[in-house]
Amino acid sequence: MRVSYDELKELFNQILLQRGLYEDDAALLAKIVADNSLDGVYTHGVNRFPRLVSNIEDGVVDRKARAECLKSFGSFECWTGHFGIGPINAYRAMERACELAKENGIGLVALGWNNHWLRGSTYGLLAAESGCIGICWSNTKPNMPAWGGREPLIGNNPLIIAVPERSGAHFVFDAALSQYSYGKLEEYRLKGQELPYYGGFDDEDELTKDPAVIEKNGRMLPIGYWKGSGLSIALDLVASVLSNGASVKEVGELENERGLSQVMIAADPSLLHSRGTVDSITASVLEGITSASGIDGRHLRYPGQRLAAARKENLEQGIPVIDSVWERILALNKG
Amino acid sequence: MRVSYDELKELFNQILLQRGLYEDDAALLAKIVADNSLDGVYTHGVNRFPRLVSNIEDGVVDRKARAECLKSFGSFECWTGHFGIGPINAYRAMERACELAKENGIGLVALGWNNHWLRGSTYGLLAAESGCIGICWSNTKPNMPAWGGREPLIGNNPLIIAVPERSGAHFVFDAALSQYSYGKLEEYRLKGQELPYYGGFDDEDELTKDPAVIEKNGRMLPIGYWKGSGLSIALDLVASVLSNGASVKEVGELENERGLSQVMIAADPSLLHSRGTVDSITASVLEGITSASGIDGRHLRYPGQRLAAARKENLEQGIPVIDSVWERILALNKG
Repeated sequence: MRVSYDELKELFNQILLQRGLYEDDAALLAKIVADNSLDGVYTHGVNRFPRLVSNIEDGVVDRKARAECLKSFGSFECWTGHFGIGPINAYRAMERACELAKENGIGLVALGWNNHWLRGSTYGLLAAESGCIGICWSNTKPNMPAWGGREPLIGNNPLIIAVPERSGAHFVFDAALSQYSYGKLEEYRLKGQELPYYGGFDDEDELTKDPAVIEKNGRMLPIGYWKGSGLSIALDLVASVLSNGASVKEVGELENERGLSQVMIAADPSLLHSRGTVDSITASVLEGITSASGIDGRHLRYPGQRLAAARKENLEQGIPVIDSVWERILALNKG
Repeated sequence: MRVSYDELKELFNQILLQRGLYEDDAALLAKIVADNSLDGVYTHGVNRFPRLVSNIEDGVVDRKARAECLKSFGSFECWTGHFGIGPINAYRAMERACELAKENGIGLVALGWNNHWLRGSTYGLLAAESGCIGICWSNTKPNMPAWGGREPLIGNNPLIIAVPERSGAHFVFDAALSQYSYGKLEEYRLKGQELPYYGGFDDEDELTKDPAVIEKNGRMLPIGYWKGSGLSIALDLVASVLSNGASVKEVGELENERGLSQVMIAADPSLLHSRGTVDSITASVLEGITSASGIDGRHLRYPGQRLAAARKENLEQGIPVIDSVWERILALNKG
């Protein structure tokens, strides 16, 4: 079935208000989850909503806690998330990074002790919508061996880089540093398929495409082997140092993947170059990709390009929702 | 043979002065190349020096041009390299980013129209030495197909992230976004060996470990397949937008891989947290890696860890130089 964006957002809002969120927090979180669905990223949208609600009910997420700036110096601020609602805290941190960028060209907010931010693209797109380049990342619990090791030791820390595009089809790179997510491994296993490319190591230390083996032994493959392993350590180190927050290792010592460290960087190119110049450079780079032909004869795509098309379709036709998911969400509404 | 650091640096300095560099430029470039050798990175040190000199003699690099700040707003500056000496311009740009970081917490210098910066770690380590986290990258000429394509279209744009470590064994992640560099492909081909992991595609669109095939068809593999491809586009887009400089595509239209766009970001964590706090978080994350055991029974290492050991050994025992390289360098000295 399909549900209109407005109906979905309002239903989320009602359910969250019933769970005791502040009014503005409920409205913002409802918008974030509805927007993820609108973008076609249902795993981080409508499908995830019931779990978000149960995390709030269970107290894994503190519904009344709000991110707070602890210290600031110029364009650099250190915030704590107080174990509050991850996406709300991350959104406000990136909003602030963009304000700092407008004042000083570049802004950095390091946010420690937050919860899971849901979908990193949300914060990259937020920056892009305000005309800023957005760079952000989060650490995670240990879920991948470091290069040369066997036990999960490093995080697949997602990294996001977003650049505004004139028509709103913003460039947004959003990737975790494991070749596949655990969600993808599960998807392939349930379909009874092999992974298209190596996704981890088996128990004999050989590369494998068998999703079930990797789900079981936790030996996910970092992108680019030793390179992704090094990048993962780098992102964790920078995030925990800047936020005075928990490192991947320390997150692993808490339960439920709580207390994450996140970094939000925004820069506003239009403060030095005219908006026309910025837009034309962006258009030229992106057209260099989209005008090239791929192996399959179709044009290549840039990261984020499909989101704008999904938004348009889902706004016009409604957001696709699996019937059973819709029933679960309706049942959460105690209005 | 082994040559002392001081002797090597002074010889470089003399040769560069003879080629008409300004005194301070000659001294800085001699130091950069000697330091790369000291770190054990001979491909970007002593072995590369003859080519650096011939690029200066040929005018590919303008020996008298110096990087210049064109525009600034708060902590964000846009510089042009005027096609001058790449490593010198990049060094001064990162120095300035660190100054901006000390003033405002974070600083960004976007440097367009520069030449090849030699080794990215140089600028990350420069930031780390001044107590800053350094993040920098450069675009390149098109040397890798985008994901799904056949022709070289994107760059293997190196990305560097450095974090100061108390004892000087700074963390420094430094990786190009291709699984292997062309230098590595050549090395394996000359040894008659296969690559340890897939490094590109063959002419039948299949993944291959044959270095000669990839050298010939130019179909290098991005790290993490589609993920590295997306990250490469992101870094190129941000660098060319912030610097108002040449994108990968435009660099490809110039000869000799000139006019590169580079980004230098520095942040000083000690402005918000005590140096002791910063040092102890860093030590804890790095010890989490170095105390873990690898598959081979040895302890794991963090990126950059080996450099400090190489520096110590090479300072004490002299820098290893291949005899024929040494003779070529001596022959450049017309003093």
